[in-house]
Amino acid sequence: MSTDQPLSTHESLSTNESLSTPVLPAQPDSFHVYDTTLRDGAQQEGLRLSVADKIRIATLLDEVGVNFIEGGWPGANPNDTEFFAAAARGDLLLKHATLAAFGSTRRAGGRAADDPLVAATRDSAAQVACLVAKSHDGHVERALRTTLDENLAMISDTVAHLRSEGMRVFIDCEHFFDGYRRNPAYSREVLRTIAEAGAELAVLCDTNGGMLPQWITEIVGEVAELGLPLGIHCHNDTGCAVANSMAAVDAGAMHVQGTINGYGERTGNADLGTVVANLELKYGWSVLPHPDSLTELTRISHAITAVTNVAGSPRQPYVGSSAFAHKAGLHASAIKVDPNLYQHIDPALVGNDMRMLISDMAGRASIQIKGEQLGFDLSDRDLAARITGVVKEREARGYSYEAADASFELLLRDTLDQLDKPFSVINWRVLTNAGRNGDADTEATVKLEAKGDVQAFVGEGNGPVDALDHALRRALEPAFPAVMHYDLTDYRVRIIDSGHGTDASVRVLIDTRDGEHTWTTVGVGTNVIEASWEALSDAYLYGLVTVRDREATSV
Amino acid sequence: MSTDQPLSTHESLSTNESLSTPVLPAQPDSFHVYDTTLRDGAQQEGLRLSVADKIRIATLLDEVGVNFIEGGWPGANPNDTEFFAAAARGDLLLKHATLAAFGSTRRAGGRAADDPLVAATRDSAAQVACLVAKSHDGHVERALRTTLDENLAMISDTVAHLRSEGMRVFIDCEHFFDGYRRNPAYSREVLRTIAEAGAELAVLCDTNGGMLPQWITEIVGEVAELGLPLGIHCHNDTGCAVANSMAAVDAGAMHVQGTINGYGERTGNADLGTVVANLELKYGWSVLPHPDSLTELTRISHAITAVTNVAGSPRQPYVGSSAFAHKAGLHASAIKVDPNLYQHIDPALVGNDMRMLISDMAGRASIQIKGEQLGFDLSDRDLAARITGVVKEREARGYSYEAADASFELLLRDTLDQLDKPFSVINWRVLTNAGRNGDADTEATVKLEAKGDVQAFVGEGNGPVDALDHALRRALEPAFPAVMHYDLTDYRVRIIDSGHGTDASVRVLIDTRDGEHTWTTVGVGTNVIEASWEALSDAYLYGLVTVRDREATSV
Repeated sequence: MSTDQPLSTHESLSTNESLSTPVLPAQPDSFHVYDTTLRDGAQQEGLRLSVADKIRIATLLDEVGVNFIEGGWPGANPNDTEFFAAAARGDLLLKHATLAAFGSTRRAGGRAADDPLVAATRDSAAQVACLVAKSHDGHVERALRTTLDENLAMISDTVAHLRSEGMRVFIDCEHFFDGYRRNPAYSREVLRTIAEAGAELAVLCDTNGGMLPQWITEIVGEVAELGLPLGIHCHNDTGCAVANSMAAVDAGAMHVQGTINGYGERTGNADLGTVVANLELKYGWSVLPHPDSLTELTRISHAITAVTNVAGSPRQPYVGSSAFAHKAGLHASAIKVDPNLYQHIDPALVGNDMRMLISDMAGRASIQIKGEQLGFDLSDRDLAARITGVVKEREARGYSYEAADASFELLLRDTLDQLDKPFSVINWRVLTNAGRNGDADTEATVKLEAKGDVQAFVGEGNGPVDALDHALRRALEPAFPAVMHYDLTDYRVRIIDSGHGTDASVRVLIDTRDGEHTWTTVGVGTNVIEASWEALSDAYLYGLVTVRDREATSV
Repeated sequence: MSTDQPLSTHESLSTNESLSTPVLPAQPDSFHVYDTTLRDGAQQEGLRLSVADKIRIATLLDEVGVNFIEGGWPGANPNDTEFFAAAARGDLLLKHATLAAFGSTRRAGGRAADDPLVAATRDSAAQVACLVAKSHDGHVERALRTTLDENLAMISDTVAHLRSEGMRVFIDCEHFFDGYRRNPAYSREVLRTIAEAGAELAVLCDTNGGMLPQWITEIVGEVAELGLPLGIHCHNDTGCAVANSMAAVDAGAMHVQGTINGYGERTGNADLGTVVANLELKYGWSVLPHPDSLTELTRISHAITAVTNVAGSPRQPYVGSSAFAHKAGLHASAIKVDPNLYQHIDPALVGNDMRMLISDMAGRASIQIKGEQLGFDLSDRDLAARITGVVKEREARGYSYEAADASFELLLRDTLDQLDKPFSVINWRVLTNAGRNGDADTEATVKLEAKGDVQAFVGEGNGPVDALDHALRRALEPAFPAVMHYDLTDYRVRIIDSGHGTDASVRVLIDTRDGEHTWTTVGVGTNVIEASWEALSDAYLYGLVTVRDREATSV
């Protein structure tokens, strides 16, 4: 509940409730955080991950410290097969996480050793196989059209084969909760078979997502007595994926599956970041490898939205841009007395920030901190306030400096009169032409002045930004040969106000690399070409300015 | 969990698990669904509701059948005061719901009858007052700076005054759970005071949103023994707002507060639609006035997003556009056998629809289902296989038909030789120019043939796509005046392989509306302008082709 009750005290109200916190569950000796973003998360509508995307996401997940990363289902689709091949070639280097391959039990009536899909899992070079198995009697008999006994044999045989080949095996028990309700004896038999075959654990899956926490607690509690280590895999169809995951952990599960940002089919999977933050901050467990890992959560979550190009929800627990945002009013003065009065945790614990919406945008303190990180002295209050004003004015127009440190540094230098521009653009244009067959050609011209010479060059490209990049690069090269080493590695466009169709304002972010460093610049405008040009020309400007500074320092 | 396990049966698998469902909680004799979208929901970042917006939302909430609508805090802000004045004038006519006014207990040391804020609540013409009261000893002493006894007197006095004026009174106990942990005796004393003063119920608020379901169950269970009817008010900071609300209901709460679509400050409030759907469909309760009310949920939820202008999450439980969307290929063959195999409820129960997503994992079965939904007979296996081949080939090049139903239908018609194009493009070009000040102008020319005439028109715009849209529209208008009603409502660009910078392939999606329908088209290419042109010209093509077909049918 949010109210505007006035606070008129300057005493700090302690919100350390530890004296009366409830008894917390004890952390199991071994606890697994298992990410399935690259397989089950990729089932989300509109989410398509290339092999390169998967490698970037896996690297980010490894940074935050999940224990297992399920890379996909080798053999089931070419993209996943190629991902595992790339990982085997050394294109994916994990520091902490273990790579897992999804798979399934062998087909009915066959032998695991001869099954091509089982072979694809076995030969994937993943250390762990996570196999889906039927645990719902109705699905076995009527969907797989085999006998209940043959399903058990399929599990035994496949687990035994992969174990004999040296793999660790986890079993995803599909439709477990629905199946247990229909026929608990058979579902228990499946778990006993899994244990006897030598699988390491059984993951209980709420495949259709229809469960509620008390039902999860009850069923997990009943089967925990079998002694087999258990995992949990939830979907959010009742809005309870996180709570259901926690309920299973309370009842004894030592392995929790989910996806970053809750990606997944239908309503998505359990948001693994929220589950991990709850376990670390509400239970006091250490489920990530380092004490500071959790402070990377917001950064990693946002970086992954940049790869998936699925905008994150501002209201996402812990990491959302609004998660610690407070609307103005008397409430704000309460927060000034003690921010913890109106927030359940310190946002710094998850790498997020409290935001006061009285001034929608960045505050002076964060500008000062950021400036210092970049090597500028902003301790002068008036100077910091002036820069904050400039940032606010630009953010109100749609700029975002969160991801665009290079543009922020250019803005700082400009405001501090420390920006000596090495080139000056006189004009540019870009033309796209197409005939009846639909194939289009794009050509750009850029005219600029650098080191006293005026240069005009033409560039062609696969679209206007590419053509402008080629023209700008050629025009700068005579004066600054270093630009030939600049490589534009990513180009992202976001509609800022999607209500206005092709008239809408857009924000463009460009990542540039020079072999040693990568930097990001931002451009904004109603004209996407103009916004792209701003980000593009600032990318070159930043590269040239900072290289010059580094050279000056080294002399 | 989403898997591609094959199903090879035509028998229907019953998913009616009622024989073994767990014991469900009994519905209390009186149960309240209390909506606070117009007050607490309006605290959401970026959400600004005018008086007219509030009236539209209240009318929609009344249609779905909530029991109480909290209209705001009269006297605390002018907008809310005006809303209650408008309601009193008859601008808001509720068929079913009771209007409630938020308020607070009187100020310390005063008299309720003389307190201007209490008077504003009293004089609001709402039948119910919902007053916020402190129930956390630390907030009373250090934030309100009054004594624990005076806080109790503030509650008694204010409740007695409003009761004597004929109002029903509910009390929102702010920070109840955090307070109960610090000092359970005082929090219980607050509840006893509320009961003795004649308030109808006490709403236990997890103001900072830090609770987990088992903690809610425990505390609600402990205070339920006092005999005062209880309500629950949750926020989603741990991702558990829905589960926490259900946990309180399980423990005896008979009044649940939330907001439509989970709007609210920070991570939002409990999503009231999800809670209600869970109670009706998972517990079998009747908490809405009519048996069919729940089938309005999706429509009402979406209609309210149109008022708030906050895009709904596709993954929102029950009502999201992806909530019953299925992607996996072989998975689709299972759904063809029985859709309930992979969904937890029949989507029609909440007024939503199952959707098959055409993706690169798609098989023939999903293409057939999708084709039938669009009115094409694809029962011929060879035909379906041929179309599947075309879809796969195009998806391999980067097309995605998941969200682009219109492009999929054009592809179907083309493959079936049922596409008679009403216009033919001869050529087009687009030019962007900028000078030293950086401002850019964009101009496009489109030349096409329609109804035997060749037309060439020029358009200007905020970027190349906008300019092409204007030129194309003007060129088509002489032959097809209907195009002037087409409105491009969204334009999305996705880099398909982000590893190649500005050289990368892109996919463009365009949403178009004609006042009655909205459709989505897709274009792909290494040249973003070419890809945009494809999506744009297909948007017009689809509109003209389907309008012609509808007209032909109606003749």
